[in-house]
Amino acid sequence: MNTQQNPVIALSLGDAAGIGPELIARLLSQPGITDSANIVLVGDAWLWQEGQAIAGHRIATQAVASLADVRSRADQHFPAFLAVDTIQPAAVQRSQALAACGAAVLKVLNLCMDGAKHGEVDAICFAPLNKQAMKMGGMQHEDELHHFADYLGVTGYFCEFNTLGDLWTSRVSSHIPLKDAAAMLSKERIMDAARLIYQSLQASGTAAPKVAIAAFNPHGGDGGVCGREEIDIIAPAVEALRASGFPVDGPFPADTIFLKARDDQYQAIVTMYHDQGQGQIAIKLMGFSKGVTVRGGLPIPITTPAHGTAFDIAGQGVADVNATLNAFRIACRMGAARLHS
Amino acid sequence: MNTQQNPVIALSLGDAAGIGPELIARLLSQPGITDSANIVLVGDAWLWQEGQAIAGHRIATQAVASLADVRSRADQHFPAFLAVDTIQPAAVQRSQALAACGAAVLKVLNLCMDGAKHGEVDAICFAPLNKQAMKMGGMQHEDELHHFADYLGVTGYFCEFNTLGDLWTSRVSSHIPLKDAAAMLSKERIMDAARLIYQSLQASGTAAPKVAIAAFNPHGGDGGVCGREEIDIIAPAVEALRASGFPVDGPFPADTIFLKARDDQYQAIVTMYHDQGQGQIAIKLMGFSKGVTVRGGLPIPITTPAHGTAFDIAGQGVADVNATLNAFRIACRMGAARLHS
Repeated sequence: MNTQQNPVIALSLGDAAGIGPELIARLLSQPGITDSANIVLVGDAWLWQEGQAIAGHRIATQAVASLADVRSRADQHFPAFLAVDTIQPAAVQRSQALAACGAAVLKVLNLCMDGAKHGEVDAICFAPLNKQAMKMGGMQHEDELHHFADYLGVTGYFCEFNTLGDLWTSRVSSHIPLKDAAAMLSKERIMDAARLIYQSLQASGTAAPKVAIAAFNPHGGDGGVCGREEIDIIAPAVEALRASGFPVDGPFPADTIFLKARDDQYQAIVTMYHDQGQGQIAIKLMGFSKGVTVRGGLPIPITTPAHGTAFDIAGQGVADVNATLNAFRIACRMGAARLHS
Repeated sequence: MNTQQNPVIALSLGDAAGIGPELIARLLSQPGITDSANIVLVGDAWLWQEGQAIAGHRIATQAVASLADVRSRADQHFPAFLAVDTIQPAAVQRSQALAACGAAVLKVLNLCMDGAKHGEVDAICFAPLNKQAMKMGGMQHEDELHHFADYLGVTGYFCEFNTLGDLWTSRVSSHIPLKDAAAMLSKERIMDAARLIYQSLQASGTAAPKVAIAAFNPHGGDGGVCGREEIDIIAPAVEALRASGFPVDGPFPADTIFLKARDDQYQAIVTMYHDQGQGQIAIKLMGFSKGVTVRGGLPIPITTPAHGTAFDIAGQGVADVNATLNAFRIACRMGAARLHS
C-alpha cells in the first residue's frame, strides 16, 4: 500500500461507437491497476456494461454520486464509477461517427475538467474520441486540445506531446502547409516548446530530462549552405535555453536525432514541423503500438492513447490495451506530481 | 553451379583510413560468396593484406593483370584480385580524412568505371569512402554520384536510392533548404523519379514493383487546407504515371506511407524532400544497420553500404558486414540483369 495519497485519475469511455469502452474494461482488469491511482470512471452505465461484455471482463466498482466524493473514499481498491446520462443505446451505431456520440464525449470530458477546476481530479485519461463526431456534436474548435485549453481558460503556450516508450516529442509547427513551416519558426516558440516538454517530463517522473532540439534543414543546414534557420533561429534558442538553466542540446539533423534518442541519450525531441515527428512515430509502429498523446501547458495533465477509435475493429474485443495502459500510467505519474507538488 | 554466366562484380576497398578494407575481407569470407558473381577486387595489395589481418580472415584470390581478364577466368570460385598502386602505407593515417586517401579512392573507382565502359564489369560495389577526402584529393563534384554521372557521360535523370531490406526510397529534392523544397517539386521530376526507381527495382529482380508516392504536406494537405502541392503537382504526376503504364499509388501522408511499406504493400517510396526519407532510415536503424545506397540512372549499377567510413571504429575488426553484404547482393542481381538483358 502507498503511504502517500494517490492522485484522482478520471477515466472516460471515449466515443461510444469505437473501441473505447472495451479498452477501459481491459485496462481496469489489469492486476494492481488501483495501486497508484484513485480511479474514477465517468460514463453511461449501459455503455460501461457493454464495454465489459465485449472485453469479457467484469470489473467491480464503487458507485459515487459526484466527483467531489472520490478523493475521500475509504476503500480505493475498487475504481469509483460515476454514472452519467449522456447518450441512449439507440442513438449509437457502432463504427459510425455520429453527432450524438461526439456530444456525449464532450459532456463527459467537460465534467471531468469541471472536477479538475474544483480540485477533485488530478489528471484525466480519456479513451479514443472521434474529432469529426465531436465537431458534429458541438465542439467549436479544430481539435480537442484547443477545446481543453479554451474550457480551462489557458492563455499561455500549450501543445501536444507524442510519447512512445520513454521518448517524448513535440513540434513547433503543426497543421500548416510545409512551405510555410519556415516562417513559423521563432526563437520564442522553440524556447516555449522546449521548456514545456522539459517541465512536463519532470512532472511525469523524469528528474533530469535530456531534451534534444531538431534541426530544420537537410544535414542541419550544413553550415548555412542548405538553409540558415539553424544559424539564425534554432542555435540561438538552444543557447538561450541553456543560459536560462534548461540543459537542451541541438540542433541535430533529423537522421541522427532519432538514433541518439534510440540510444537513450535523450528523453525528448522538439521537432520543427509536423512530419518531422512522423518518422519517430513510424519507427515505433514498426515494432509496437503503445503510443500516447499528452497535452502540455494545461492546468491538469490529460493523456490518451495515440491511436483512434479504430472503427474497423470496434466491438470485436480484439483492441490492444497497451497504449491505453501507458496513457493511464503517465496520467498517474503526472497526477501524483501535481497532487504532491 | 550456375548454368548462366555470372556477372563481373568489381569491388573496391574504399577509403584506406576507414573500415572498408576489413569489411571487404569479411564480405569475401562469407560462404558461397562467389556462387552468383564473378568477383574482382581492385585495390592496393598491402591494404588488402591489412584488411584481412584486421578482420582475421585470409582470403584466397586469383591475381589478374587487368579487368579484361576477369570475365573469361576458368575458375571463378576464387575472387580475382587486381593489384593497383594508388597509395603508400606511410600516406595513410587511420581514421583521418586525407587527400591522399581520397585521391586513391577516386583512382580505383575510375578504373572500375573504365572497365564498365569497356564491357568488362557488370556492376560495382564499393566500400565506404569519405567525400571530404575525395574533394581534397581532386573530386570536382559535390559528391561521388555526380562524379560517376559525369565520368560515365550521363546526361539524363539520375539519383540515389536508399534501400533497406526490401524497401527502396528515392527523393525528388535533396540538399537544398527546406523552405525551397516546395519550389523544386514538379510533375516531371516526380515522374522521372518514379520511373527510375520502378525500372531499377525491376533490374534488381522485383518483377512487378509497387511504388508509393509520398505527399508533401501534413496529412497530405488535408484536401488543400494544409497546402496544395498534392492537388496541383503530385496527384497529377501519379495519374500521368498510371496512364503511361507505371502502376504507382499516392500521394500518401508521411505517417501512413511507412506503415504501408512495413506491411509489404509497396517496395518503393518516392519522397518529396531530403528528410522525409530519414524517418524510414531511422526506422530500420532502430533494428539493424543493413542499409544500402544504389545509384540509379547510370549505365552500370553501383552500390555501397549506406553507412560511412566509421573512423571511430576503423581498425578494430568490429565493423558490421551486413550492409556491405546487402550492397554486394544488390550489385549481383542488378549486374546479372544487365548482363543477361
